[in-house]
Amino acid sequence: MSDEFSRIAALAARIGRPGRGVTLGIGDDAAILAPFAGGIVLSVDTAIEGVHFRRGWAPLRTLARRAVMAALSDLAAMGAAPRATLVALALPADIDDDAFLELVDGTADAAREAGAALVGGNLASAGELSITTTVVGEASARSLTRSGAQIGDAIYVTGVLGAAALGLALLSRGDGDAGDGAAFVARWCEPTARLDEGRALVSGGATACIDVSDGLAQDLGHLCTASRVSADIELAALPMLAHQREVARALGLDAATLALTGGEDYELIFTGPASAALAAIGMRLGSIVADRGVNEGGDHAANARPSGGASEVRILDAHGQRVALAARGFAHFQR
Amino acid sequence: MSDEFSRIAALAARIGRPGRGVTLGIGDDAAILAPFAGGIVLSVDTAIEGVHFRRGWAPLRTLARRAVMAALSDLAAMGAAPRATLVALALPADIDDDAFLELVDGTADAAREAGAALVGGNLASAGELSITTTVVGEASARSLTRSGAQIGDAIYVTGVLGAAALGLALLSRGDGDAGDGAAFVARWCEPTARLDEGRALVSGGATACIDVSDGLAQDLGHLCTASRVSADIELAALPMLAHQREVARALGLDAATLALTGGEDYELIFTGPASAALAAIGMRLGSIVADRGVNEGGDHAANARPSGGASEVRILDAHGQRVALAARGFAHFQR
Repeated sequence: MSDEFSRIAALAARIGRPGRGVTLGIGDDAAILAPFAGGIVLSVDTAIEGVHFRRGWAPLRTLARRAVMAALSDLAAMGAAPRATLVALALPADIDDDAFLELVDGTADAAREAGAALVGGNLASAGELSITTTVVGEASARSLTRSGAQIGDAIYVTGVLGAAALGLALLSRGDGDAGDGAAFVARWCEPTARLDEGRALVSGGATACIDVSDGLAQDLGHLCTASRVSADIELAALPMLAHQREVARALGLDAATLALTGGEDYELIFTGPASAALAAIGMRLGSIVADRGVNEGGDHAANARPSGGASEVRILDAHGQRVALAARGFAHFQR
Repeated sequence: MSDEFSRIAALAARIGRPGRGVTLGIGDDAAILAPFAGGIVLSVDTAIEGVHFRRGWAPLRTLARRAVMAALSDLAAMGAAPRATLVALALPADIDDDAFLELVDGTADAAREAGAALVGGNLASAGELSITTTVVGEASARSLTRSGAQIGDAIYVTGVLGAAALGLALLSRGDGDAGDGAAFVARWCEPTARLDEGRALVSGGATACIDVSDGLAQDLGHLCTASRVSADIELAALPMLAHQREVARALGLDAATLALTGGEDYELIFTGPASAALAAIGMRLGSIVADRGVNEGGDHAANARPSGGASEVRILDAHGQRVALAARGFAHFQR
C-alpha cells in the first residue's frame, strides 16, 4: 500500500467514521465541518526530524501524538474548544507501511484525546520526516489572547516548568531510561494540551494567556510585549517535579534556569486577578507590573512606546533582588 | 532578522492588517475568524523542494504563490468561498532574509488573489524547503463532492489539459525559455485556482467535481470511484493549448497522453446535465456511464460492489473505439 492513494485509504479505514460536527471527512478534495456558533480558531505547527525530535527518542506513534498535542496546545492557550485536526505528513522513503500506520495512530491518539476529529491532511514523499498539524477550534464567548494582561494582575502557570527540557536533555545524551529520569522523559514525550484549563480560564476571568513552548522567560516575554507590561517572577515560586534539582545537577544543569528557559512543557501561563477561581487552575508565579520605561521615565504614554517595546520579565530572589538570567530561552529557529 | 520571532514580525508587517472576517490575525497563539453561516471547508497541501519543485525553475515568489494556489484549488473543487490561509514554511539555512520575504510575498500574492486572508502559519528550520498551506473556505449552500456523478451526466473541464505537465517537462530539461515553450512553463508556474468557476458550478447544477492535480485519468478515476460510476472520454475532445502537439513532439512526448495523465493543471473536472449553464463554465469531454461490472453482469446492486470498485475511465477515439492509455497518471508519492 505504499503509494499515496492506498495509504490514504488505509488511513481513512484506521480513523473510522468522523464524529458529530463533521459534514465530510477524509477522502474528498477538502473536509467540511458544520458551522460553529463561535469564531473559528486556527493554528499550525510543524515538527521536523532532526530539528524538533529524533526517531530514536520515542516510538513514532508517541512522536506523532506529541506533534499534534503541541499544535492543540495553541487552542488551549486561546480558551478554544478543539473541533478538528488536519495532518500533513512528509515521509522519507524509509517510512514503511508499518511506520506510516504508527504515525497515523499517534495523530489519531491526540485527536481523540482532545475530542477533535481528524478530518484531513496530506501525504507527500520527502527527504526528511515532518508532521505539520493544523488545528481548528471553536472560540469561547471571550477568547484569551496574549494582549490583555493588566498591571497588578497575578501570573499563574498550570503545571511544572523545565521538566520537559530536562527530559530532552536526558534523551539527547541517550540517558532517558536512567532511574529518576523517566518522569522527565515522559514530560517531553507525552505532553497533554491544557484544553480543559484553557476553557476554564475564560469563565475564571483570566486576562491573558500563552502556552509554554519556548520557555517561560521567552513566552511570558511575548505576553508582556503584546500587553505592553512587564512581569516580576519569584524564583522560589517556579513549580518543578520531584527530584528535578538533583536530576538536573547530575547533568551539570541548573534546575531554575531550565524552569525559566526550557521549552515544550505546553503548560499555560496566564494572568488575571488574584482570585480563588484562577488559583484553582494554576500556581502563582509573580505579578504583572508596569514597564520599566513607563515606570521610571513617566513621560511617554503606553501607546507611544516605540516598537520593540520595553517589556521585561524580571526574576526576583527571596529578598526581592533581581537575578540575572543566563539565556532568555531557546529559539526553535536554529538547527 | 534571521531568528523566528523577528521573521514573524517582518512577515506580519509585510502582510498588513487582516481584512473583514478576521477577528485576530498573525501574532498570537492562534488566529480567529468570525463565524461563517456556511460549513467550514478545510484542506492542506504540501510542496517540497526536490519532490514538487526545484528552486531553479522559477523565482521563490512564484513557487510560493504556486504552492498556495494548489491548496486553494481544493476549495474551488468543493465550490467553497476562500476565507483564510495559513502557511507553514520549513526553511533550510540557505534561505536568507531576502529569500524568506520572497516566499512570504508569494504566499500573500495567492491569498490576495483568492480573497483569503493570510492569518497565520509556522516557521521552522529544516533540511529541505517546504511550503504547507492550510486553506479555509466557507461552504456553499450545496457543496460539490466527488461522489455525486450520475449515469448519463456530461463530463466537463474548465480549461486545457496537459499544458502544465508539458511546461514541467520543459523545466526539467532546462528548456523553459525556448520559443513556444514559455506558455507551457507559465501554465506550470502560474496556476490559478478556479474559484469563481467552482462557485458557479454549484448554482449551475453540477453533480460532482474534482480538480486536476494528478492528471485527468487519475483524478476522474477518483471521482468515478467515489460516485460508483465509470466514464467515457472522447480523445478528440481533450482541450489543449495552441502548439501543444508540436512542442510535445519536439520533446518526444505525446500530447494526448500528457492531456490524459499530466497533473498540476488545477482545472476542475465536473459532471452534470448537458446544459447551457454548465457548458458556459467548461468544455465537454465525455459522459458518465454505468460501471462495466454492473452493466455486463447485471447481478449485483451498486451498493454491493466490492471495495476497490469497478470504476473505469475509458478513452474513446473518433470511431468510439477504446484507446489504451500508457499510464494512469503520475503519483506524487514517488521521489
